[in-house]
Amino acid sequence: MSAPKRVGQYTLQYANPPVVVATASIVGPKEGEGPLGDSFDMVVADSYFGEQSWEKAERKMLEEAVKMVMAKAQLKPQDVDFLLAGDLLSQTISANYAARALGIPFLGLYSACSTIYEGMTLAAILIDGGFAHHVVTAASSHYDTSERQFRFPTEQGIQRPPTAQWTVSGAAAVLMAPVGNGPRITQATVGRVVDMGIKDPNDMGAAMAPAAVDTIGRHFQDTGRNPIDYDLIITGDLGRVGHEIATQLLGSQGYDVSRNFSDCGILIYDHQRQDTHAGGSGCACSAVVFAGHLMGKLNQGEYKRILGVGTGALFSTTSTQQGESIPGIGHGVVIEKFN
Amino acid sequence: MSAPKRVGQYTLQYANPPVVVATASIVGPKEGEGPLGDSFDMVVADSYFGEQSWEKAERKMLEEAVKMVMAKAQLKPQDVDFLLAGDLLSQTISANYAARALGIPFLGLYSACSTIYEGMTLAAILIDGGFAHHVVTAASSHYDTSERQFRFPTEQGIQRPPTAQWTVSGAAAVLMAPVGNGPRITQATVGRVVDMGIKDPNDMGAAMAPAAVDTIGRHFQDTGRNPIDYDLIITGDLGRVGHEIATQLLGSQGYDVSRNFSDCGILIYDHQRQDTHAGGSGCACSAVVFAGHLMGKLNQGEYKRILGVGTGALFSTTSTQQGESIPGIGHGVVIEKFN
Repeated sequence: MSAPKRVGQYTLQYANPPVVVATASIVGPKEGEGPLGDSFDMVVADSYFGEQSWEKAERKMLEEAVKMVMAKAQLKPQDVDFLLAGDLLSQTISANYAARALGIPFLGLYSACSTIYEGMTLAAILIDGGFAHHVVTAASSHYDTSERQFRFPTEQGIQRPPTAQWTVSGAAAVLMAPVGNGPRITQATVGRVVDMGIKDPNDMGAAMAPAAVDTIGRHFQDTGRNPIDYDLIITGDLGRVGHEIATQLLGSQGYDVSRNFSDCGILIYDHQRQDTHAGGSGCACSAVVFAGHLMGKLNQGEYKRILGVGTGALFSTTSTQQGESIPGIGHGVVIEKFN
Repeated sequence: MSAPKRVGQYTLQYANPPVVVATASIVGPKEGEGPLGDSFDMVVADSYFGEQSWEKAERKMLEEAVKMVMAKAQLKPQDVDFLLAGDLLSQTISANYAARALGIPFLGLYSACSTIYEGMTLAAILIDGGFAHHVVTAASSHYDTSERQFRFPTEQGIQRPPTAQWTVSGAAAVLMAPVGNGPRITQATVGRVVDMGIKDPNDMGAAMAPAAVDTIGRHFQDTGRNPIDYDLIITGDLGRVGHEIATQLLGSQGYDVSRNFSDCGILIYDHQRQDTHAGGSGCACSAVVFAGHLMGKLNQGEYKRILGVGTGALFSTTSTQQGESIPGIGHGVVIEKFN
């Protein structure tokens, strides 16, 4: 027995696919200098963004991204039914304080770097289910707040292994509604937590790749589609190491993704020029690439249908210190532009 | 313009109110010795629950609670469409690892001690919206993991001020479905983040009380109801200090809650006999009291309609160290037993 708005065992199919009315993105200077720099709404001049701490800078990016997306749609906070947001910091403090400043009814999420995709999935459920007219989902991360929480303080200058990824500094917000212009969220395949035993927080792409593949495989099975049915299949932050693993794993399942499979963590930096090793990561990685680059291509008609898979590494400093491996998750969302 | 499944500006009204088919609760020895001890499904003999660390004990409690609620309904993990869960630990590691063990598509939440109420709100949306048949929502906390993360390691034996609360060790899981016996979730009023400037992590009741009052007030305004329309209005973990503040604030808004207003943090311990100061707190506090005590009263017909308001303090150790005040949130859910 399947619920009415489902296709196959796992995939949600929205009856009246919610519209992505507007997106907003704010990034740090390094992301602004990267290959996608022109696609972001705002590039801040320094990583403090005028604040006293990096944590406060990250929070300000998140808050400003939400304000920006509301301004684009000429909405005020009281016009927005729900804010769904999260970030990487312990107890998701960036999201909590941004929500405090905005006063919008708030549903806090934690899904590591896949947060914006969990948010889009739930926002579409709220709208298609008839519970809301305007929902904003948002996520942030910051290189310096993240490094000092998960790995080493950046001032320490620890040498990074080639598998390490560079946490994206930035925030993005996505505004969804039942009607309007813009691409639509048509389907979602929610992730399962998958853990293949990777224990190195400097090798997160390898930890997350099997989870992304689990979601993509279930999505194809549920929908009867193949990679060729998408203009683009794009993961959140597998980076070059994880991308190669995911490509091989999908190939071994009979899915040839050689022509249209990419990763936000690969696209956002020029890794040779910018010394970012395996690529970008962090909640902001998939969020700002969706809000900037991908929304641009969808609105221009270059992409008609994409499968975005937000990827997350669900570990903490305590769990790695206690010898635990790093579980991964991947939330898949289909975004289509119909005209 | 209001979305169809809404009453007033903020309150969700489910068209086909989802049924709470079963609940499961596991608590530590101290909670087992408290006034509600008989209402819980399992009382573990010691705070390690047979594990090597308190973090692993908390995770095991969460995982076992989910398994127990599925067993009660004779369901297997593959019968459950979604698991929505969270906890207090950084990066919600208890929930992440429990989700890894269970293999159910997972939506991670962070809403501090109000997590189970955010989960029930979203689970009801998934079911009433036609997206799912069986959803489990779960939350956990543990005295020793929480104290050492937010305040001081328990081994240190720091003296606790009278306003301090005692984090409940335990976990609960709630299974919801479109049909079945059991109470139904009829309405939900999602919380806004409210901050009145409290900076003391040993006075969380005072920090959260205004957020609970904001939600209860909006709920009454939206629905046109009064306190007397509920058999019970119960907050999650305001404790005795926060409960008194909330009672006064509601009184000043013209709502007399003197006869039917309670708090899970007050009910769960005998504070004089058990030395728990202002009362219980933690994600497990409202979760196990709902799953055990309140479900019992609803199923026995003693309560026909209750308003439960999960309360959360949305701070982190970093935010208090950086001089920030503690924002609060309160998610309100109406649970009714029709026959």
